[in-house]
Order: sequence, then structure tokens, then C-alpha cells
Amino acid sequence: MKTQGAGIAVSLGDPAGVGPELLAECWRRRQPGQMPFFAVGGARLLRAAAASRGIDLPVARIADPAEADAAFAGALPVLGELDGEWRAGEPDRDGAALALASLTLAASLAARGEASAIVTGPIAKSRLAAIGFAHPGQTEFVAEACGVVAEDAVMMLAGPSLRTVPLTVHVALAEVPRVLTSALIVRRARIVATALARDFGIAAPRLAIAALNPHAGEDGRMGDEEARIIAPAIAALQAQGIDATGPHPADALFAPRARETFDVALCMYHDQALIPLKTLDFDAGVNVTLGLPTIRTSPDHGTAFAIAGKGLAHPGATLAALTMAGACIRHRRSA
Amino acid sequence: MKTQGAGIAVSLGDPAGVGPELLAECWRRRQPGQMPFFAVGGARLLRAAAASRGIDLPVARIADPAEADAAFAGALPVLGELDGEWRAGEPDRDGAALALASLTLAASLAARGEASAIVTGPIAKSRLAAIGFAHPGQTEFVAEACGVVAEDAVMMLAGPSLRTVPLTVHVALAEVPRVLTSALIVRRARIVATALARDFGIAAPRLAIAALNPHAGEDGRMGDEEARIIAPAIAALQAQGIDATGPHPADALFAPRARETFDVALCMYHDQALIPLKTLDFDAGVNVTLGLPTIRTSPDHGTAFAIAGKGLAHPGATLAALTMAGACIRHRRSA
Repeated sequence: MKTQGAGIAVSLGDPAGVGPELLAECWRRRQPGQMPFFAVGGARLLRAAAASRGIDLPVARIADPAEADAAFAGALPVLGELDGEWRAGEPDRDGAALALASLTLAASLAARGEASAIVTGPIAKSRLAAIGFAHPGQTEFVAEACGVVAEDAVMMLAGPSLRTVPLTVHVALAEVPRVLTSALIVRRARIVATALARDFGIAAPRLAIAALNPHAGEDGRMGDEEARIIAPAIAALQAQGIDATGPHPADALFAPRARETFDVALCMYHDQALIPLKTLDFDAGVNVTLGLPTIRTSPDHGTAFAIAGKGLAHPGATLAALTMAGACIRHRRSA
Repeated sequence: MKTQGAGIAVSLGDPAGVGPELLAECWRRRQPGQMPFFAVGGARLLRAAAASRGIDLPVARIADPAEADAAFAGALPVLGELDGEWRAGEPDRDGAALALASLTLAASLAARGEASAIVTGPIAKSRLAAIGFAHPGQTEFVAEACGVVAEDAVMMLAGPSLRTVPLTVHVALAEVPRVLTSALIVRRARIVATALARDFGIAAPRLAIAALNPHAGEDGRMGDEEARIIAPAIAALQAQGIDATGPHPADALFAPRARETFDVALCMYHDQALIPLKTLDFDAGVNVTLGLPTIRTSPDHGTAFAIAGKGLAHPGATLAALTMAGACIRHRRSA
């Protein structure tokens, strides 16, 4: 796989959202030595979005990802001719179609190894669905482009304070106990352990497995999933040489001293993973997809149509997504 | 009701836990003008527990709570003759019996208005259950002593960053969707609103009501409890003039800017309320019981048998529980 010098492909996200302006902001804040990135389309609209933040953005049109490195210091490299109107806060079908085209091309470049990683800009899922996008989200789309089944593309949320993985994601709370199995926990935990070693340079990652019930069920008085599902999964992981502990009562797992005892917390449901992450690292949360042949990160926020074009969007999460993708590329190359 | 100058009654908690030593530590750190407190029993064991932290604790035996005020500046007032051995980290039946006797007397004093408030020290529920304690926890015990049905004694967790109320508490996660009703949300939210006004000096408290499902169910795609149960409860509360908003997606509700928009978050289950509280305010979390004729607070931690007597226990939560009880007394008196 070609990964040297190919840079990070960034999809535009919905052009009516904050994705384009934040990409321009991240280029403005570029640092010497950082892994170069390039936008997949949007030369004209990126300049318009940049102007809304007072940035006179130079763009360098490129025809091949390999040209991004040389251009990056002096201009934001933009691959190809895809483009559209910049109408902040006014999403429409044309914008959704552009977002999907940019995502499709970026995912294809990453899947083929022509880009070293993909960072996806924020989209509005309902708007993409309206034009025929059939995937639950960008994670599953990128996984399919890479030939990975969706179940093996594992979402991790990472911030300066914490990494968490929701083992079940877009599932009603009432369904969580039915969806959760020992096999699911073991399968995803193994993907997490492998990815933390390969992409994050953590040779023997410490996995803290959260309980499902309050007080970890208090010996079965409040639920038996800990004994029936979670503890057997932990035993199986330990037998495979993985440093997994738990089930830990979830309420105390994210307190400062507890956080020092693990590298990642594996959580049983969406909000168990997302509450501590957003509570601690709201403006710097990165959504990482583990288990792919490429590296994929994304800022952990939505399109924020309401504040697009107003200079209010915080670039922290996009900066962090780009930095993390760069670090993962370096870890893989040195592995 | 007699509330002037009667001080705060503090139950010992399990004498093998960290309760007694932290009470001594809090007396050592007393401040001029603070609301006086007194221990309910334990003169001898408090001195022993204090010595483990290097404190030569003067105690003043009192026969009536009204004597606490005069004694407090020079010694820790101790009411009555209840006492036992101090054996840190070695809980036994005698210790559990002493904890229960201290709790019983303290609750009775508070219920009769002979103490202005009760702060309960940490107990081990399973050890109290072994000697016949039939209540789920101290909250329900104090409620019964006050003649309040357990459902109307509402637990609130409060720290420097956040206040949260779990509307369901010691319930398996799988049971939560079945236990949750609009009536339960409305009833408890009303108690919370009344108590924040009366005991916390917040004239028109802002109640943020959390969703149950990820992304608040995303228009019913991941659960219908928001539309079926939570939204109607919010509408009913608003119709009664209560400033209630939601259902809010829980993951973003506790981020710094979001926290500024409400005075208390009402959560659908235990960990939804406890994760953000313990993540942010682990060493300063107070458990407050709302809806009682008296004021009851408690440090939001357990007996910590493993570190009792070693000088390691952090007094932050007990200090905060005493400070909060004092502030609530003053708010009620001035109301």
C-alpha cells in the first residue's frame, strides 16, 4: 500500500455547515512539520467560506494526492474539480450531492492507499439520506469503501483527557441489553487492542470494560448482564493476552484518578461513552474509526448550520482530527 | 418547627470506614461563622479515628443539640453515649449496629426539628442489611423517619460544577424504560423545583430534562420514549409554570457551555446522572435529599474500608456536605 507522502484527504462535509470554514482555519494554523492535508474538491467554496472568517485563502489545485506535500506550505491543496456554491446555513440538495461526491472520492483515495488517511467533514445524515445515501453514517460508508464489514469498523472517541468506545452505537436504550453479547464485546475489544498498538503506539493497551447496570449490578441485585455477558467476555480477552479489566461501575470510571488506570474505556452504549467524552473534551473530541486498512478520523461534531459563516465555529475538533490522523500515519509507518 | 441554633446532626457511618476520621478532619478545618455540627455518638472512637490522621481531637459531650453551638468552636460536640471500638478497615456486626443506632437517632432529631439538618456518614448497605436494615438506603430511611413516602424523597447530586437528579435510581438498565412514566417525571421535577427555590435560593430554577436514547431518539428512529413519555412531562411542567426544557441529548448536556444554561439536570437513569457528576466533581460530590421537611446531605462516596485509618481519605465531599447543609438551613430561615 502506498502511504508515503500521500497526505490526508479531507472531505468537505455539507457545504452549508461549518466544515469548509474550519478546514480553511486549520490550514491557516498549519505548523512546520505537520502532516500535509488536502481538500477533496471545493476550491471556490472554500475561498468563500474562508473569507467569512477573514481568511484570504490561497488554494493550489492538484490532480494527484502526491502533489499535496509540495503545495501545502503555500496554499491549501484542493484535489479535482468538484465544487459548488457556498451558502452558509442554507443546506440544499446540491450541497448534499457535493458532500457525498467529496466523501466518495476521499474514501476511494484512502481505500486505495493514494491518500494516507481520510478526515471526514461533518454531514447532515438526514440530508444525505434524502438523496439516496443508504448508510447509517460516514463510518459505515468508509468501511464499505475499504471492504470492511460495518461491524468490524469500531468507533472510538478520543480527546485530550480520555478515549472511549461505544460497543453499541445507534440503538435505542431499551434495545441495548438485547444487542449486547459476549461475542460482540470480544470481537470489538480485539479490534481496539490491535488498533491502539498499531496506530497509537501503545504496545500493551489497557482496556477498561464498563458495566451496564448501576454499581455494576451489585452482585446481580440490579441486572445480571455483568455476570452473564460482560465478565465472560473479559475472561476470554484475558485468556488471549489482552489487558482487559472490569466490569467497572461506569459512574466512577471517568473520574481523574480512575482515568489514569486505562488507555481506553469500552462502554456498553452510546451515551455511556459520549457523556464523559463531551463533558471533558467538548471542543477537542475526535471520532476515530478503528479496524480499517486506512486511517479515518473526524471532528466529533455536526454541521452546526446555525453558526456556519458567522466566525463562531471552534476549530479545536478539526485540528485535533488532523493532528491525530497525522500521528496515526507516523505510528503505522514506524510499526 | 425548631430550627434556630440547633446545628447539624452528623451520623457516624460505619465506624470501620472513613466516616469518623473525615468528621474529625472537618471539625479541624472549621471556619468562623460556619453552621455548627455535632456527632451523634462515638466520642471515644472519633478520638481514635482522629489520631490516625494526627489530630488530637477535643470532644465536648452534650445532652441536647441546643448545646452544640456553644461547644463547637473549642471541641467537636458529641451527643449522647453511643460508642464503640474503632477498628479501621475491619467492619463487623457491632460496628454496623452502632452505625444504625447513630443514624436512627440523628434522623429522629432532624425529623423532630431538634437538629436543623442531618448529614449522614457512609454506611455499607449490605452490612446493615445483615442486621435487619430493610431500607434500600439511608435516603429512604431518613424519608420514613420524616413521614415522607420514599418516592417523594428525591436524590440530587451536587458538586461545584453541576447538579443532577437521577429520576430512576437503583434499577437495572433494562428496567429503566419500563419504570419511567410521565407522572414520575412530573412529580419528581416539581419536588426538585420547589426544593431549589426553598433550600438553594434559586427563585425560578431552570430544569434541563435529559433524553433517554442516543441523540434524543432522532425523531423516533432510536426509541420513542422522548415523544411518548418525556416530552409530555415537560409540557405539563411548563403548563404549571416550571422552567423545564428538553428532552436534551444527554451526551452534550454536560459540556461546559451547556452546563451554564440550567440549574439542575434531570436524568432518566442512575449512570446518566452520576457519570458527569463524578467525572467533574469526584472529590466534592454531595448527595442531597430533596422533598423532606428537614435538610439531608451526605458525602457522595462509600465507606472506603480499604483506605480507612491510613490518612488517605479526601475530606472534600464531607466538607461540601456540611457546607451545603449549612447554606440550605440559612436559605430556609430567610425564605
